[in-house]
Amino acid sequence: MHVSEIETPAIVVDLDVLERNLARVATYAREHHLRLRPHTKTHKSSVIARMQLENGAVGLTVAKVGEAEVMLRARPEDLLVAYPVIGEGKLRRLLDVARHTRVTVALDSLEAAQGLSNAAAKAGMEIGVLVEEDVGLGRVGLTDPRKLVALASSIAGLPSLRLVGFNFYPGHVKAVDAEGMAAFHALAAVLEETSALWRAAGLPLEVVSGGSTPTLFHSHELPVLNEIRPGTYVFNDRNTVESGAAALEECAAHLLVTVVSTSRASGMIVDGGSKTFSSDRLSTGGEVTFGLLREEPAAKFVKMNEEHGYIDLPPSARHFRIGERLHILPNHICVAVNLHDRVYGVRGENVEQVFEVEARGKLQ
Amino acid sequence: MHVSEIETPAIVVDLDVLERNLARVATYAREHHLRLRPHTKTHKSSVIARMQLENGAVGLTVAKVGEAEVMLRARPEDLLVAYPVIGEGKLRRLLDVARHTRVTVALDSLEAAQGLSNAAAKAGMEIGVLVEEDVGLGRVGLTDPRKLVALASSIAGLPSLRLVGFNFYPGHVKAVDAEGMAAFHALAAVLEETSALWRAAGLPLEVVSGGSTPTLFHSHELPVLNEIRPGTYVFNDRNTVESGAAALEECAAHLLVTVVSTSRASGMIVDGGSKTFSSDRLSTGGEVTFGLLREEPAAKFVKMNEEHGYIDLPPSARHFRIGERLHILPNHICVAVNLHDRVYGVRGENVEQVFEVEARGKLQ
Repeated sequence: MHVSEIETPAIVVDLDVLERNLARVATYAREHHLRLRPHTKTHKSSVIARMQLENGAVGLTVAKVGEAEVMLRARPEDLLVAYPVIGEGKLRRLLDVARHTRVTVALDSLEAAQGLSNAAAKAGMEIGVLVEEDVGLGRVGLTDPRKLVALASSIAGLPSLRLVGFNFYPGHVKAVDAEGMAAFHALAAVLEETSALWRAAGLPLEVVSGGSTPTLFHSHELPVLNEIRPGTYVFNDRNTVESGAAALEECAAHLLVTVVSTSRASGMIVDGGSKTFSSDRLSTGGEVTFGLLREEPAAKFVKMNEEHGYIDLPPSARHFRIGERLHILPNHICVAVNLHDRVYGVRGENVEQVFEVEARGKLQ
Repeated sequence: MHVSEIETPAIVVDLDVLERNLARVATYAREHHLRLRPHTKTHKSSVIARMQLENGAVGLTVAKVGEAEVMLRARPEDLLVAYPVIGEGKLRRLLDVARHTRVTVALDSLEAAQGLSNAAAKAGMEIGVLVEEDVGLGRVGLTDPRKLVALASSIAGLPSLRLVGFNFYPGHVKAVDAEGMAAFHALAAVLEETSALWRAAGLPLEVVSGGSTPTLFHSHELPVLNEIRPGTYVFNDRNTVESGAAALEECAAHLLVTVVSTSRASGMIVDGGSKTFSSDRLSTGGEVTFGLLREEPAAKFVKMNEEHGYIDLPPSARHFRIGERLHILPNHICVAVNLHDRVYGVRGENVEQVFEVEARGKLQ
């Protein structure tokens, strides 16, 4: 299949860039003795997950049980569900997954741990637990290391659970600028204190798991950390570039779109909007734009409706014709991939591999 | 199936409310002699489309050829693709659709019309055309009625096309407040001028098609208008309520979510984020919130990550427990439905009907 045969809008992935991204992060993790457990939320493909495992990942990360079910196809030795699993139906399905691979769940409450313990005991199985620390995002997790260790102690006493360590997500660090790096380095003391209290309580500490894509290549600067869970690095996106963690040429995935109207005075309309890109804004800065046009970087993707992308063009830009196909780097690739059934892997002008977005819509 | 068996996050639709919404708009259109051609982008289900046709809709509206292919299952007499169809592959598929039902395309350029004409002539078929007028949104369409009529005249001369009339989308009118209604009523003169010029050019004018959900019940106040294409009215959403076009009890669809963490000081985390709701903000006002919690309307849905919804609770609110299931009215139901594989039709505590979101991801 030639790239010109791809119907738009569609996600095209440069396989050379993808492979370089996989290798670069695998090398970084190996060199710094960090266990790499990539989050599969970005690609949602068991085929790319398998590529990650073959590049040396120790296991995979997912958010939902439905994603775990799909990711079994990648034959991971180990799966982390980095999300509290709540409710009997989900716990039953989680234990079915655990018949095929070693499963760990990240959680932040005794309620979640008790539900998991009950379900695991009933199934005659053992499930790993990471206790989640909130290091600044204010999402899931306990902020007080003493409370975290108290919860971990309670969990250690529950049947059918195996306490593995603790995890955190530094999602409050959006960029590797001075402010972001100060916030990131401040984590060292927090993690140090937490692990000291943890060990003082006589608890096993096999894993301290953290890491997001923006701060990825600084992970070794947190001495206590021994596992990282980046997701976006496989493709990178405009947010990653803005965060300072990737260069434009390290972005593997673009939206291929077609110009469908040039009536508007300030520019043109392309055939992708919020149902193609998602309406995610940039995670840093105040500019409200939705992507970067590769063919004219000075253009501004200023607005979206569901199926329409509004591109403003500077007076200096050349005229784009109706029917012309263009490449747009999305703000946030993870949510964009989630809107597509497949992603086209391209080498030069050749579509070499089509990745089904197998875990798309696996919300439960 | 009992509602308690639905795994969260999921979209639940109150069938009583849905049926009342369908009937109310059908009655309104009938009483005002307006042809009702609902946009199926909201529900993306051929089953609900069939319900609309059985309630008196003259045909259906879609945005993409892929949606047209799906909507054939509803057996419409007539399908409007309210979007320029550009490119040989899509035109070929459009003509396949036209073997099964009468097809009209809305477009705004001679390039789009010529492509359609060539493809239709090659297939030995005739396709209807609406020429799109831009009445204020600045998206697709010509703003100058003279240019619109000149384009229509050119199109009338192209083989295998049947000029049907013109269409517009008053998407710049976000609410039925004083400002919105002034903008809406200003359309009367524009449409009057356009149709006078159109008729003076000796062109056939069978259809003047407009209408969005916010201004739906004012459509009869535009004398020239004879067809409306509302989409959101089947379910309604927070935007529709904020626009003044629906009451809360006319909202049929909610997101059913589960509380997964109560660690954060200001509230709780539910198991739906931007991959469940979309990250669409409200279309009116400056408040950045992502939905309305039915069980505690004073709560604020202040932030989302992909799988996490951050709910702030006022001090007066009761404590929500981990595992509790809650209902959230989304800002924009169309983009939310597009993230789900199915929608659960509920009557009381009983899941009476499961609607597959058949046109989800049919972006091409």
